[in-house]
Amino acid sequence: MEMRQKSCLVGMCGVVMMLAAVVAQAADQLPSWNDGPAKSTIVEFVTRVTKAGSTDFVPEPERIATFDNDGTLWAEQPMYFQLLFALDRVQAMAPQHPEWKTREPFASLLKGDVGKALAGGDKATAEIVMATHAGMTTEEFEKIVRDWIATARHPRTGRLYTEMVYQPMLELLAYLRANGFKTFIVSGGGIEFMRPWTEKAYGVPPEQVVGSSIKTKYEMREGKPVLVRLPAIDFIDDKAGKPVGINSHIGRRPIAAFGNSDGDRQMLEWTQGGGGKRLMMLVHHDDGAREWAYGAESKIGTFSDSLMAEARKQGWTVISMKDDWKVVFRPSNELQGR
Amino acid sequence: MEMRQKSCLVGMCGVVMMLAAVVAQAADQLPSWNDGPAKSTIVEFVTRVTKAGSTDFVPEPERIATFDNDGTLWAEQPMYFQLLFALDRVQAMAPQHPEWKTREPFASLLKGDVGKALAGGDKATAEIVMATHAGMTTEEFEKIVRDWIATARHPRTGRLYTEMVYQPMLELLAYLRANGFKTFIVSGGGIEFMRPWTEKAYGVPPEQVVGSSIKTKYEMREGKPVLVRLPAIDFIDDKAGKPVGINSHIGRRPIAAFGNSDGDRQMLEWTQGGGGKRLMMLVHHDDGAREWAYGAESKIGTFSDSLMAEARKQGWTVISMKDDWKVVFRPSNELQGR
Repeated sequence: MEMRQKSCLVGMCGVVMMLAAVVAQAADQLPSWNDGPAKSTIVEFVTRVTKAGSTDFVPEPERIATFDNDGTLWAEQPMYFQLLFALDRVQAMAPQHPEWKTREPFASLLKGDVGKALAGGDKATAEIVMATHAGMTTEEFEKIVRDWIATARHPRTGRLYTEMVYQPMLELLAYLRANGFKTFIVSGGGIEFMRPWTEKAYGVPPEQVVGSSIKTKYEMREGKPVLVRLPAIDFIDDKAGKPVGINSHIGRRPIAAFGNSDGDRQMLEWTQGGGGKRLMMLVHHDDGAREWAYGAESKIGTFSDSLMAEARKQGWTVISMKDDWKVVFRPSNELQGR
Repeated sequence: MEMRQKSCLVGMCGVVMMLAAVVAQAADQLPSWNDGPAKSTIVEFVTRVTKAGSTDFVPEPERIATFDNDGTLWAEQPMYFQLLFALDRVQAMAPQHPEWKTREPFASLLKGDVGKALAGGDKATAEIVMATHAGMTTEEFEKIVRDWIATARHPRTGRLYTEMVYQPMLELLAYLRANGFKTFIVSGGGIEFMRPWTEKAYGVPPEQVVGSSIKTKYEMREGKPVLVRLPAIDFIDDKAGKPVGINSHIGRRPIAAFGNSDGDRQMLEWTQGGGGKRLMMLVHHDDGAREWAYGAESKIGTFSDSLMAEARKQGWTVISMKDDWKVVFRPSNELQGR
């Protein structure tokens, strides 16, 4: 017995040493993550599914990871950045729309009263979106987004929006890709609002972006083929829409999914439901000092109490921005004094 | 002058030799293609867009090539293979549907009279599709397709359907991928009918398949998340729908597109409209001895006279199955005596 116990202990010791070595190695690839349950969950998952011969091994083509965008890969306060884009567009387009001076929700927006403009609810939001996102070709819209993302600055931090992406999540995307994963964005945001900049910002090419969309129509204009953006919703990639969007665009079930709000619940359920080793994580915005602290009471990106309860029940890992991230944006340049 | 002429001639000779070498090298990768305008157009295009420093150079992430499926990558006679799948499903499901014995289009189908069943036009086709493609989960449907594609055989050749893919097109797909292209299928066929087998048959993974779709709905069944296939059209990926589907799923304009019928016209227009070096090709079924010869009078896969006229006008390359392909399916196993 003694011998057996001894060799067993030696064996366990070997496993522990191996895992420690793997974690140490991975540490180089996730330098902005503090040691803790979130980081070790990620590293253990990746180690298991990539180890040939392991019962948890997943062949490379099936290593699909999906990421929500707003609040998961970049910030979303004081409101979704795409809404800030729409508001900037309303200002820019106002000279061509004198009628907006007296028509809501535009009249309030032009007076700078966003709260009053959005008090009109979904109908007001839809009016703003359609006025600013439809009526041009896909190429024209792409240029508008490119110009905006290259120059517009966040109202509180003064940063470019692409400077408000989360450094730890960039490292996670790269770490997964280095381990044979294909990384996808699956966002409630507009698919064509994201595609012009996700490749540069996240290393995610346009064909790996899934999002909400409006309808487009193919036609010839002066002998040139164009796709015209119509003022009609095509698809809402949020909540129960996320598994539908994933199925439509990817055609495989993810083995890892990352979100931060109730809009991501079904994506995580769908990922978990596939069986086998799975990784489900939720970013929790609990860092009022370096970013924002918000939860159920927030108007956007709601991480409700019921989502927290489901995360605990299902064994999803909650990432504490405060505890798990060494840095939020960039080491030299936190959002101090905002 | 003499010297200059001489060196100029030497220079030209160098270019000719280089191109000859490139063509010879590529020949190894396209062994089933006869030397001729189609093959040389392919090789010249790939050589130009991949040559660093060339004015035609295209960075790797933008090397998107789209392929129609029916009649372009695999055969489509005597009718679309997906329709043969639906007919097989009707036979298999008939015991659970006694009412079909007296209800069209099912009654005619069960008597083996496909012509009469389809005489009901789009409405009849839609009824057959909805009865056979909807009402189950995506996982259940995937299994049905996998079982069928692994066992069902073509009514005339007796081959598995995946043995009726075109060998020269397989070589073309591989040649493009070896040169940094991402290859996509963009088909009028059902996206979920194709995805279970395109990776094995063509090396095209599910996330690079674009097709027609029916709506799906996310729900929980006995605590398990499922996507249920609903009897409602979501998107028709044909004709003017192809550029829409390409934009929705890929988010970039292809630089090369391959089709074989009027349903591909807009995809080729859209590809060509992007400017820069582009490759547009159409497979022409003119080989009644080894495959089928059909054109405008055919009920499916129509290559109309007006498409041929547009191909000539626009400079699209028509692939003659008879003249350009050394083999259609496999060297040892042509469809002799069908």
